Amino acid sequence: MMISKVVGSVVATQKDEKLENLKLLVLEVHDQNGKAAGSYVVAVDSVGAGLGDMVLYATGSSARQTTLTDGRPCDAVTMAIVDSWDLGGDNVYEKWKDV
Amino acid sequence: MMISKVVGSVVATQKDEKLENLKLLVLEVHDQNGKAAGSYVVAVDSVGAGLGDMVLYATGSSARQTTLTDGRPCDAVTMAIVDSWDLGGDNVYEKWKDV
Amino acid sequence: MMISKVVGSVVATQKDEKLENLKLLVLEVHDQNGKAAGSYVVAVDSVGAGLGDMVLYATGSSARQTTLTDGRPCDAVTMAIVDSWDLGGDNVYEKWKDV
Amino acid sequence: MMISKVVGSVVATQKDEKLENLKLLVLEVHDQNGKAAGSYVVAVDSVGAGLGDMVLYATGSSARQTTLTDGRPCDAVTMAIVDSWDLGGDNVYEKWKDV
Amino acid sequence: MMISKVVGSVVATQKDEKLENLKLLVLEVHDQNGKAAGSYVVAVDSVGAGLGDMVLYATGSSARQTTLTDGRPCDAVTMAIVDSWDLGGDNVYEKWKDV
Repeated sequence: MMISKVVGSVVATQKDEKLENLKLLVLEVHDQNGKAAGSYVVAVDSVGAGLGDMVLYATGSSARQTTLTDGRPCDAVTMAIVDSWDLGGDNVYEKWKDV
Repeated sequence: MMISKVVGSVVATQKDEKLENLKLLVLEVHDQNGKAAGSYVVAVDSVGAGLGDMVLYATGSSARQTTLTDGRPCDAVTMAIVDSWDLGGDNVYEKWKDV
Repeated sequence: MMISKVVGSVVATQKDEKLENLKLLVLEVHDQNGKAAGSYVVAVDSVGAGLGDMVLYATGSSARQTTLTDGRPCDAVTMAIVDSWDLGGDNVYEKWKDV
Repeated sequence: MMISKVVGSVVATQKDEKLENLKLLVLEVHDQNGKAAGSYVVAVDSVGAGLGDMVLYATGSSARQTTLTDGRPCDAVTMAIVDSWDLGGDNVYEKWKDV
Repeated sequence: MMISKVVGSVVATQKDEKLENLKLLVLEVHDQNGKAAGSYVVAVDSVGAGLGDMVLYATGSSARQTTLTDGRPCDAVTMAIVDSWDLGGDNVYEKWKDV
């Protein structure tokens, strides 16, 4: 999994029927220090993530292991909203201290 | 999934029989700001995408989850035509405003 | 899938028994303009491709969806010989015009 | 698999139910010489790894082959704590000599 | 598959039970010209490869298609020892001429 920030969403009405009713988020991939890594991915939201949330996403066949994405043509899914993470015991990010 | 633009197509008559009757598109991968990212992929079309359309594509085993690509030796599929996407609330791309 | 050129082959007598009787090709990955992209992959041939042919290859579990590669420890397969492809309506490559 | 060092952990209370009770580690990817390679991954811990441990992690569908991660939306897992490795017969890393 | 050289091995006693009795090799990835490409991977040995051997390895779910690795949390496997390969008809590597 990688850490990323929800920065946007995608609207697509003409799509494979198995994608109906799934919310598509634009995720900005972040490094372990919480800085934007310069890449992005479009992922299906399975946890009710909102704009600005730091989330974990999984890719490949693992992205189809949530109840929501099972059997669907989806190769990336947000499956957790990050509360905090630390490196070497020091807090890098804390959701509730984020301005 | 990644955002990409349909820029071409591939013709191949000598191929695995499971690829018969599938349309092969050349997709130019785009970044989240709508700029070409310098890479491409050849994907099976599952949504009737045409030249110039912005589409989402999925890779790996997820590319075989559409009815059209199930069980076929295909590792990339377009499964949605993008109408629009936004970043931080600002519209980056809108299909119907695209000249 | 990616476009590539068949540039060589690999001989390996000591191998997993499931790889017996499969032809292993060295593929030079090409970009959408038909130029060598600086990387390569070794793929199982499922279409009778020969030296100099432009081919499409698929990777990952999709590489095991041909009759030939089903259930084998093979993560790349050529599944189509390219006749031609175009970008924006202009022909980039045509097999029969290639000197 | 790649070699990496456990450098932190991630806390996430709002997540897919299949991720309950899994420990999420931040892994710093290392090269074969034992130097940090500049990238990271968040992986589920299946071996009781602790801060500072060198571990092996597996990605993709292989990350779901441990008893702990079977059927879960997890695309990276630590499945071994490294005692030592060598290159050309010379020891590069030994756990018990590490200060 | 990619070409690589066996340059070392990894010892890990604390690991997922499904990894018991598997030999873990450090592989240096090589390019099509036989030069080290600057990256590595740790792979399970399924062919009795030894230090200095040039081997092919497969990744992802394909790495679990050997009898040895079936159902195990392993995302890379050596499944062939390379005898030779050629580019454009010229031999690049021959095992028995290698000093």
